[in-house]
Amino acid sequence: MANSIWKEYPAMGKRIDRTTEFIHKSLDMRNEAIAKMIKDLTSGGKMLRPAFFLIFSSFGPDKKTDKELIPLAASLELLHVATLIHDDVIDDSPLRRSKPTVHTKYGKRNAIYAGDYMFTLYFETISRYLPQQSQILTNALSMKKILIGELDQLLINFNVDATAKMYFREVAGKTAELFSLSTMMGATISGGDHELIARSKNIGHEIGMAFQIIDDILDFGDSRDTGKPNFEDLRNGVYSLPYILGLQDKNAELISVLSKNELNNDDINEAARIVVDNGYLDQAKGIARTYSKHALKRIAKLPRGKNKTALNKIVEELMDRIE
Amino acid sequence: MANSIWKEYPAMGKRIDRTTEFIHKSLDMRNEAIAKMIKDLTSGGKMLRPAFFLIFSSFGPDKKTDKELIPLAASLELLHVATLIHDDVIDDSPLRRSKPTVHTKYGKRNAIYAGDYMFTLYFETISRYLPQQSQILTNALSMKKILIGELDQLLINFNVDATAKMYFREVAGKTAELFSLSTMMGATISGGDHELIARSKNIGHEIGMAFQIIDDILDFGDSRDTGKPNFEDLRNGVYSLPYILGLQDKNAELISVLSKNELNNDDINEAARIVVDNGYLDQAKGIARTYSKHALKRIAKLPRGKNKTALNKIVEELMDRIE
Repeated sequence: MANSIWKEYPAMGKRIDRTTEFIHKSLDMRNEAIAKMIKDLTSGGKMLRPAFFLIFSSFGPDKKTDKELIPLAASLELLHVATLIHDDVIDDSPLRRSKPTVHTKYGKRNAIYAGDYMFTLYFETISRYLPQQSQILTNALSMKKILIGELDQLLINFNVDATAKMYFREVAGKTAELFSLSTMMGATISGGDHELIARSKNIGHEIGMAFQIIDDILDFGDSRDTGKPNFEDLRNGVYSLPYILGLQDKNAELISVLSKNELNNDDINEAARIVVDNGYLDQAKGIARTYSKHALKRIAKLPRGKNKTALNKIVEELMDRIE
Repeated sequence: MANSIWKEYPAMGKRIDRTTEFIHKSLDMRNEAIAKMIKDLTSGGKMLRPAFFLIFSSFGPDKKTDKELIPLAASLELLHVATLIHDDVIDDSPLRRSKPTVHTKYGKRNAIYAGDYMFTLYFETISRYLPQQSQILTNALSMKKILIGELDQLLINFNVDATAKMYFREVAGKTAELFSLSTMMGATISGGDHELIARSKNIGHEIGMAFQIIDDILDFGDSRDTGKPNFEDLRNGVYSLPYILGLQDKNAELISVLSKNELNNDDINEAARIVVDNGYLDQAKGIARTYSKHALKRIAKLPRGKNKTALNKIVEELMDRIE
């Protein structure tokens, strides 16, 4: 069943369910344990990327059927989950969505291959359902930008000289690009003109940036809410925006804590306190707000309709998570 | 410069060089260290998969230019090297082609992303240079078969009940499928009919099977020849064909050694001795010979020409490595 965020949009909830079904039917591996794991990972999530794709495919002049759209919606979630699985291996994260990660349960070997397999399903679906011209348009650069974003993350890792600019560049690739791809692919498949495609791409980018920053901010909250172990990233030298803002501000106290060889629980609490007391957390919230405001401004210029109303509400609900 | 196996075929050597150049020009990541590593990994190898693709693209009625062919040849090597990099992370292999593996030198994170990046380059190149109809024909199943082969490997790992049938199924996916893809893509792009495509696919499969078994047999040789640490696989519970044949034969001596919790050098030498003394190594050589004979028989039915002569010689040279 679709995630509860779709309760208000039952029609979208049904399409999300059909997208999940499509993914599950596509899994044709003999290894049942891994197939089951992938099924779990692609069930009950918010499925934001497929949803954005479906919403944006209503804005162009060509009306496509769900038979044409659902596979492409599914492909975006496949790509997303593939990168999640590989990220979890790399970061050695024990939990994802409150469940053990693939590599924790089935070992790194299976996790790497499961990710590769899902990448493959993504490309297979794209090459079957997306016209070649649109493939080149939407696909050529996106995947690479995502991976280059991941590689750029290394430049920030354990780097107390990291700046907000480096962080934004990384997130633009790592998270926002997949949102851009989803919105842009929707505009493209529905025959949108150059202006609509460019606008959709920008909206996807801004929502993606806001989304990642909000995720960073929620990391300050209770780990039971997000299903992720709290401060795990910080221990791995992965600095989220509130910390980056402190580092960029050359906050001596923060630099001194984060420069330690290994962070114990006291260090982590201390770093969090510094970030809150100096207003870096609020500053990060302000930046997320700015991104979502920009997105809403652009959304206002999209063609009217119930999809536009839903889009507005979804963006506002995302913001509500940190207000 | 192209590998020395192309010395006898200078025209092919030049096309291989151009293929390498295409790969190097495609690398557009900011991370220069990793770009350099990928360049090293795609230089000086035998480049058999691109070569088979180029050879088979001469057998159909449509004559394509190198401008159309070289990118596709390059894509096959990209796909090959992507799987190598991930395999090395998974097996924790320290060396590849006598050089430190990506993950040894740059860490697992970079290795996983570098592999993902190369998968992406593969798909990007395919979606740009291969007509969509051929994409669906050649591509849809191949990549998945390769990955499913890799996952099947787990069924054999540390499994003293492994059979030759399980081994063949795994190798059919893991190694032979990429050779099939190369030969079949060549036949397809050159407008070959159903018969030529099917024949090319079978030849690729048989060469691939022979190639993997020969590789297994060479593992018995000096590690300095193959650039791989000797018997590393055995220690990791990855059984090559000679061992599998002994296990299938229910050789009690071999089962007893391989059932130990950890194999020391004496155990490994003992296992190798058992395999040689009981003729399993020779049996494996016989199977490789059978595969290459089948391939040569099918090659005889291909259109005449200098490419056919070269193909015959290459297959014979591969076999010579174990004679």
